[in-house]
Amino acid sequence: MSARAPSAERAAYYEHIGRNHMAPLWESLHSLVPPQPRPRVVPAIWKYNDVRPLVMEAGCVISAEEAVRRVLVLQNPGTPGSSSITGSLYAGLQLILPGEIAPSHRHTQSALRFIVEGCGAWTAVNGERTTMHPGDFIITPSWTWHDHGNPVDGEPVVWLDGLDIPLVQYFDAGFAENYPESQQPVQRPEGDSFARYGYNMLPVHHKVSDPTSPIFSYPYARSREALDTLYRNGELDPWDGIKLRYVNPATGGWPMPTMATFMQYLPAGFQGKTYRSTDATVFSVVEGHGTVRIGDEVFQFEPRDHFVVPSWAPVQIAALDDAVLFSYSDRPVLAALNLLRESRT
Amino acid sequence: MSARAPSAERAAYYEHIGRNHMAPLWESLHSLVPPQPRPRVVPAIWKYNDVRPLVMEAGCVISAEEAVRRVLVLQNPGTPGSSSITGSLYAGLQLILPGEIAPSHRHTQSALRFIVEGCGAWTAVNGERTTMHPGDFIITPSWTWHDHGNPVDGEPVVWLDGLDIPLVQYFDAGFAENYPESQQPVQRPEGDSFARYGYNMLPVHHKVSDPTSPIFSYPYARSREALDTLYRNGELDPWDGIKLRYVNPATGGWPMPTMATFMQYLPAGFQGKTYRSTDATVFSVVEGHGTVRIGDEVFQFEPRDHFVVPSWAPVQIAALDDAVLFSYSDRPVLAALNLLRESRT
Amino acid sequence: MSARAPSAERAAYYEHIGRNHMAPLWESLHSLVPPQPRPRVVPAIWKYNDVRPLVMEAGCVISAEEAVRRVLVLQNPGTPGSSSITGSLYAGLQLILPGEIAPSHRHTQSALRFIVEGCGAWTAVNGERTTMHPGDFIITPSWTWHDHGNPVDGEPVVWLDGLDIPLVQYFDAGFAENYPESQQPVQRPEGDSFARYGYNMLPVHHKVSDPTSPIFSYPYARSREALDTLYRNGELDPWDGIKLRYVNPATGGWPMPTMATFMQYLPAGFQGKTYRSTDATVFSVVEGHGTVRIGDEVFQFEPRDHFVVPSWAPVQIAALDDAVLFSYSDRPVLAALNLLRESRT
Amino acid sequence: MSARAPSAERAAYYEHIGRNHMAPLWESLHSLVPPQPRPRVVPAIWKYNDVRPLVMEAGCVISAEEAVRRVLVLQNPGTPGSSSITGSLYAGLQLILPGEIAPSHRHTQSALRFIVEGCGAWTAVNGERTTMHPGDFIITPSWTWHDHGNPVDGEPVVWLDGLDIPLVQYFDAGFAENYPESQQPVQRPEGDSFARYGYNMLPVHHKVSDPTSPIFSYPYARSREALDTLYRNGELDPWDGIKLRYVNPATGGWPMPTMATFMQYLPAGFQGKTYRSTDATVFSVVEGHGTVRIGDEVFQFEPRDHFVVPSWAPVQIAALDDAVLFSYSDRPVLAALNLLRESRT
Repeated sequence: MSARAPSAERAAYYEHIGRNHMAPLWESLHSLVPPQPRPRVVPAIWKYNDVRPLVMEAGCVISAEEAVRRVLVLQNPGTPGSSSITGSLYAGLQLILPGEIAPSHRHTQSALRFIVEGCGAWTAVNGERTTMHPGDFIITPSWTWHDHGNPVDGEPVVWLDGLDIPLVQYFDAGFAENYPESQQPVQRPEGDSFARYGYNMLPVHHKVSDPTSPIFSYPYARSREALDTLYRNGELDPWDGIKLRYVNPATGGWPMPTMATFMQYLPAGFQGKTYRSTDATVFSVVEGHGTVRIGDEVFQFEPRDHFVVPSWAPVQIAALDDAVLFSYSDRPVLAALNLLRESRT
Repeated sequence: MSARAPSAERAAYYEHIGRNHMAPLWESLHSLVPPQPRPRVVPAIWKYNDVRPLVMEAGCVISAEEAVRRVLVLQNPGTPGSSSITGSLYAGLQLILPGEIAPSHRHTQSALRFIVEGCGAWTAVNGERTTMHPGDFIITPSWTWHDHGNPVDGEPVVWLDGLDIPLVQYFDAGFAENYPESQQPVQRPEGDSFARYGYNMLPVHHKVSDPTSPIFSYPYARSREALDTLYRNGELDPWDGIKLRYVNPATGGWPMPTMATFMQYLPAGFQGKTYRSTDATVFSVVEGHGTVRIGDEVFQFEPRDHFVVPSWAPVQIAALDDAVLFSYSDRPVLAALNLLRESRT
Repeated sequence: MSARAPSAERAAYYEHIGRNHMAPLWESLHSLVPPQPRPRVVPAIWKYNDVRPLVMEAGCVISAEEAVRRVLVLQNPGTPGSSSITGSLYAGLQLILPGEIAPSHRHTQSALRFIVEGCGAWTAVNGERTTMHPGDFIITPSWTWHDHGNPVDGEPVVWLDGLDIPLVQYFDAGFAENYPESQQPVQRPEGDSFARYGYNMLPVHHKVSDPTSPIFSYPYARSREALDTLYRNGELDPWDGIKLRYVNPATGGWPMPTMATFMQYLPAGFQGKTYRSTDATVFSVVEGHGTVRIGDEVFQFEPRDHFVVPSWAPVQIAALDDAVLFSYSDRPVLAALNLLRESRT
Repeated sequence: MSARAPSAERAAYYEHIGRNHMAPLWESLHSLVPPQPRPRVVPAIWKYNDVRPLVMEAGCVISAEEAVRRVLVLQNPGTPGSSSITGSLYAGLQLILPGEIAPSHRHTQSALRFIVEGCGAWTAVNGERTTMHPGDFIITPSWTWHDHGNPVDGEPVVWLDGLDIPLVQYFDAGFAENYPESQQPVQRPEGDSFARYGYNMLPVHHKVSDPTSPIFSYPYARSREALDTLYRNGELDPWDGIKLRYVNPATGGWPMPTMATFMQYLPAGFQGKTYRSTDATVFSVVEGHGTVRIGDEVFQFEPRDHFVVPSWAPVQIAALDDAVLFSYSDRPVLAALNLLRESRT
């Protein structure tokens, strides 16, 4: 359709139907059904060197208790005011100081935590705590009680929060509740879920009633070991280096139904080829330095930097020294809706 | 968190982090993670008596060929300018006049057609045509070539278009192409797909490679017969009357991965009890008169009216005479994402 | 391994270990793990002209009540005394005379009924009756109460019973109970299940809790219509003619978890090419005359004949006039166990 | 039906129909469709103290090369000559001496290896070797090339072979081939599959095309650690102690489609309650001493003993000191066929 203004006659008609809450499809068809994706989300990077002082300053600006969650939201420059890093996903950096508690609540939104800096804080999910170490991937699934804390003699801990807040908002499907106490009671020793479900074995009468993973911590030490072994064995994909996805061990599916999570290893000197995918993706750099080209933008990255790739943007990653990248996206949603498309060149 | 303006000190900090594309979660947490859904979508009804003249007038305003699709979009009054009837779904009334062709194209968006008025037009999907009759439910699944036409000696035909346009736009996952000709070639006789897949039998070597239904027309005569039989047999649910969902006969799942479709029968005098659900739903009245209470709104409905129920709004339907309602929603998406919640009181 | 008798030393050793319930694998490895299947089951045909008088004579030999089920078992000539027609499946011809009841019971074994001759008898499953007509395919799934009857003014009715009796016996998993009365009470009108599940629609809150089909009668009129339509549309597979499998409409899977059922149409003059499959299959001729070559055997068939194809035997079917064949096999079992292998030449 | 001999008239009729390969169901109905399972398989134990000398003697009687597989088959005393330990499963003890090779082949039959005694032998599957240690559970799935070997300077190694030989024979679905060389070439370092699939992560583009597990070794050290942790955490089921099932990490299903495998821990003094199940089960004692009551039989067990539980036999297990039991059964088959029934009292 032409982009010209409609004739006076049509304009009058449009106004008329508009009063009846109707609009002419033919004036908007091309933008509603585009030949390929035109995201408002743009490529962006948050350099940890810039971000860290601001995160630490938040520790002075507000207490964890007052904030409930003391988080700086990474907001996509293409969608200001959206509290989103991609169309469907949220990213934030959460700070918890020694002696603080982020009080217990639950909500429909699924959350992932990827530890960026500091050791010794804990997350509790459904009565079990897990201690956080940099590089650990932890989930607090939809509608599970969860709280976080840091011992009095601990160190400041910063993690990346990845949630499907925009998605749940989009579908008008969000519910939330606070726990009556700031901390839920501990009911099982640390590591219990992992022993029960993490060893390529399952309890004999376990029934899958839910798509979420029954293990909620995937320690970095293990993920790193898997990547190292595969690298020593000579595996290397020209686009991805060595890239594994985290799985729900009870199904082989994603740990949570709305977010995929990945960890990949790029050996020093790796020059990745270009790919694109409809799942916009958030990266957290764990180790190493390198370069990422996203569409027309090029970013240098180093440990603890975060960057975002919009849907269908061409991506090319190169590593100067051995690099490890964590990433997450809404791939399970796109796959379930038959909307995932990938291209490699 | 308080809704008061932040202190000057905090305001300065927010401004500072804002320049780094960051925002304080604690100022928006409550609205981002609400205790229950707060949709912008509102209840609304489009009375066919009001709408029909405007639809017919569109036939004078623009040709099907120029329009590509001559459709009046039903736009939710709560989200003006959105081209959406619910957060994720689109609804429109399409008019095709005798002798017209709506040219062949394909797109990532899934579409359903529910025939409102007129007989004899056809929809072609992947080389097979189906003739349209009021009450027929027809699908044009994602990425299938499809075109519509009306014989020269036909009558004006109006149908409801239901698409996941907002959803696909939201996920930045839309692709589209035009077919080189206005009509795709016919490759199989009408009814071939139904004979192959519709009789509770499947071709012996059929493999399911796709979540979409291999039959693309569900004639009203059959759906009505099923409802009638169940009513005669004494079935009646206090909330739903008799309500069936359309299925993909190769899987038992939904006909398309993004939209659920339903048909229900309410006998004269039926007074439905109240339910709510997180899947916002669009209704098309096929037969009968009645009343629907949606939250605080009450609408009288008659044949060919359309109304919309927002997520989590309490709904109560009553029928004055025997009524048949078609409806569609994004339930498959919510179910896949574990976000479907229902309540009956 | 050699087939020679073992040395005296080895024989002594074998005898010694035999007393400890052990045996030397190396003496039997080749027969236990053969290069390809060596079934004891052989091709066979039961000509209805021969069989019918014997079935009718059973009506004089024993009453339905005394017999519980008045059935002549078709016993594979290669496995006499086995009550089996293939390794895992049972076939029998059941006769029910006017005024008779085959009393209600239930068992772990799944059963299919394929009507061979006569009209008007009924099968009741879980409180619903269905009237039998030649060519109808009816199921009485595992652990469902079922009984059969024939009105006083009816005609003798003969049907093929297909059960997984040998399979359930093999797995030592059989349970059975008699109903306290000879007939279970009728709880729903005839056709209720079909209206609920058979129209490519399902009740909106239906949950799949079981692999068995919720419809239990697949009338011949409909199956024949599907085949006819496809034949008119030009479909014809060089091996199968037009071959459809019956499905569970709630899943797209098999009607019952242990038996696949098929109906195929071969136009007059059809000369099928050769195929083989690991699922030994029982055929019931519905219409037409033809020839089937099974391994080295050739049989002429006509309506109401039954024949059996062993696992992996080459099969070639030809039709003199338009033929319709019903068949059943243990394909779902082989598929679930990853043991299904097919070859077409 | 009565067990009396039939009348002369009926006997003549039976003889007549018998010549037509037919038999009267009513004479065998009760035994074909029993009220509950009546297995021919009986409870039995093979004491390792008795068995070990015979296994070692096999090393003198025949070479691994001549035997292809030097295995003593554990044959159920209730089914002599069957080469079966349960109706559907096979068990054998395989011996491989230092310097020997069990040559490479593949077959439709699925196999599990559970290491009973000795270290350092290897199994190769599809180009990757794994070193065997007591308590390791190793699979050689259907139609995968596999061979076994023991280094020249190694020690005698004995393992339990569990296969579905009777099952595959029953379904006439067995195929087999020898590899042209005695050993297949090694293509990947040891541990590669485990690194790729064993860490609760999967390769990003992995597609599940097969029900078998992509990891083929489940080391005892890890299984034991999981059980120990759960025991320390206070888990204890009154019937099972602590019982885990091995899973395919890509699906959460069984490692192979025909055999379930379990490992359980019973603390000293544990007195298990009685259960029964339709999956006849083979046990291998890894650690500890105890007592098992199976129907009317009571067996004392100690490490490396093997015993078998028939379908539906009541089982009760008690441990004198901390005990670990490995077991396997055809549970996946029964579950797929809807024939699994369990009872706990």
